[in-house]
Amino acid sequence: MKKFMEIPGGVTAAKGFEASGVFCGIRKIKKDIAIIRSVIPAKVAAVFTLNKTLAAPVVLDKLILKRSTRCSAIVANSGNANACTGERGFGDAERMIELTAQSLGIPQNEVLVASTGVIGQYLPMEAIESGIPQAAALLSEHGSDDASEAIMTTDTFAKNCAVRFMIGEKPITIGGIAKGSGMIEPNMATMLAFLTTDANIEDGLLQKIFRRGINRSFNRISVDGDMSTNDMAVILANGMGGNADITEGSPDAELFEAALDHVVISLAKMIARDGEGATKLVEIEVKGAASHSDAVAAARSVANSNLVKTAIHGEDANWGRILAALGYSGVDLFPEQIELSMNNLPILGKNYTILIDEQKAKVALAEKDISLSIDLNQGTDSAIFWTCDLTKEYIHINASYRS
Amino acid sequence: MKKFMEIPGGVTAAKGFEASGVFCGIRKIKKDIAIIRSVIPAKVAAVFTLNKTLAAPVVLDKLILKRSTRCSAIVANSGNANACTGERGFGDAERMIELTAQSLGIPQNEVLVASTGVIGQYLPMEAIESGIPQAAALLSEHGSDDASEAIMTTDTFAKNCAVRFMIGEKPITIGGIAKGSGMIEPNMATMLAFLTTDANIEDGLLQKIFRRGINRSFNRISVDGDMSTNDMAVILANGMGGNADITEGSPDAELFEAALDHVVISLAKMIARDGEGATKLVEIEVKGAASHSDAVAAARSVANSNLVKTAIHGEDANWGRILAALGYSGVDLFPEQIELSMNNLPILGKNYTILIDEQKAKVALAEKDISLSIDLNQGTDSAIFWTCDLTKEYIHINASYRS
Repeated sequence: MKKFMEIPGGVTAAKGFEASGVFCGIRKIKKDIAIIRSVIPAKVAAVFTLNKTLAAPVVLDKLILKRSTRCSAIVANSGNANACTGERGFGDAERMIELTAQSLGIPQNEVLVASTGVIGQYLPMEAIESGIPQAAALLSEHGSDDASEAIMTTDTFAKNCAVRFMIGEKPITIGGIAKGSGMIEPNMATMLAFLTTDANIEDGLLQKIFRRGINRSFNRISVDGDMSTNDMAVILANGMGGNADITEGSPDAELFEAALDHVVISLAKMIARDGEGATKLVEIEVKGAASHSDAVAAARSVANSNLVKTAIHGEDANWGRILAALGYSGVDLFPEQIELSMNNLPILGKNYTILIDEQKAKVALAEKDISLSIDLNQGTDSAIFWTCDLTKEYIHINASYRS
Repeated sequence: MKKFMEIPGGVTAAKGFEASGVFCGIRKIKKDIAIIRSVIPAKVAAVFTLNKTLAAPVVLDKLILKRSTRCSAIVANSGNANACTGERGFGDAERMIELTAQSLGIPQNEVLVASTGVIGQYLPMEAIESGIPQAAALLSEHGSDDASEAIMTTDTFAKNCAVRFMIGEKPITIGGIAKGSGMIEPNMATMLAFLTTDANIEDGLLQKIFRRGINRSFNRISVDGDMSTNDMAVILANGMGGNADITEGSPDAELFEAALDHVVISLAKMIARDGEGATKLVEIEVKGAASHSDAVAAARSVANSNLVKTAIHGEDANWGRILAALGYSGVDLFPEQIELSMNNLPILGKNYTILIDEQKAKVALAEKDISLSIDLNQGTDSAIFWTCDLTKEYIHINASYRS
């Protein structure tokens, strides 16, 4: 039995967190600026994109977190990535921090900044000058929905998740919001994700557990193989749950990690399901690998294959393309040893034994949720990846939207 | 001035080569089996896919070429890849060789076999039993068009190229045919390509020059990043041009290599232009790289980016996506140093200086041929890649065609 349960409230489910999201005019119609706030300074852990082309807010946050281990607020806008904007971009990102700090009456070094949207355009600072104080004035314990809407770009639904569990006699909460949709590639935090918790947890342990969680969630999803310039995942831990400090190696640390994993994996799956133009969520499990890195590489190769993703869109149990993608994954595998099933239907046995019942496969692949189970029959390691199908709508969105 | 000129005739332009292509019933309507023949045994060089999932004909040809350095004929079918077909697949590929050898009255170890099409289905051997003798009977010095049609899968046009040049006082010819379209990824020979020449050339030198040519052509194109199980490029050199042996390091070797490069690069560009669903040929030149491998990695990353390819389809000069793709290429670059132009229009200067004239860019990107020139400003190395735009038609083809 799981020792935690899902609750509503997203990024404001934990004690002492508020959020808001408003429209200030960066985008044409939808909410475009969000603030997340801890009422007292919180411990912070963060993971950033590995792209060498880094947006100004990413560079700035990395600098800030080298000097400061506490954070009280995150300000984020959609509609403009503030990437490839040079000196002026850094100034604009700093100004977002300054405005947030002023509006909330907190020190500037306790504010992080994030942006997502089109690359290579300057932020419309007039809109932001009015938007940030407005968002600050609307901060609320029920603001998660607004904040999660305000960070959406081509996302079709807002992404919220929270869980509650007991540490000693204290109810503790972890919650979060995320946005994804395009430029999603499994290599470090690959979108925006903001998490909050009221747990007390040792310095250092939070970063360790968070990084491991990211590796099992946001680093295991792929929409189009394009890695963004702006991605970051941040968690704030303000300790207001009043539990005794969670320490490394304790059962409490294990429970905290399982609960955190649930939140980040849930958000990651929402991002994969909501990939640009996607109609299906695809879970790819590679088992029987000789090593964990083999399992990850094999699953990633299938997840990134345009041909596999179009076949799934066409509801075609095209196992040949899966074997081809496994074959070029770089893993030293024996294709004739591979067994394959889709939504629990056996498709392929060893020595290329074709087990597929095309009629049943057609029905199974009409589902919205597709699971591919691949057994390499080489060892005992496994890994799971999530992706989505590749559709004409993806082309439509990206041929017409300058992101 | 170039010392060679293009001539018609494709794979049969060189002396002593014949080809044919017929319909035998593997596919529904179009020609599906081809033979290429040298009237005397020819020297042979070949390059094969690096995919671990290897089709039966690829495994077989590699075995044959370990034992034999002469080849008189190649038999190839479209419509069925004979991949992931186990023991029976090997038997079927061997039978194709046997039938070809019998029909032509040549030894079996002088025949190579190739297949392309759907993975995981057995070859319809009844059709092939009648098709090969039929193709053998129709071999002709004018058969290049038929053969190039017979190896097409989702290709929309047949791909032929030939050049003629002088070695001493002898006119020498190199020609070839190719097919591509989907599962095109820059890693070794990534499609079917059959080349012929009547040059006399040293053993070993042919393989060296051929491999270098492949690295500058078929290994520099990308349609969808999926590497096929069946790809191979083969060249036959029958010496019937009567020139003195071309030796390593000689001016003749240099001329031969330049001429061969012209043929393989022309065929490679045809493959990129004819990518599944493509409407544009995109040439990506990366200059100013610190090393050749950096230039290749940077160009490949841009060529494989779904977001860049959809933007070009939308005729949107979306340089931000190009910078993002360069940023995750793995190359240690400085994005603010990058300069970018499209079809000779300056788009971006150093320090993210936006030079783009959106009106002119719109006109330039309406062209069928798009060239991206990227200067990393880090060194003196460069590389060229070719790709195509990514369109709804790609999705349509691959969601409905089991390849």
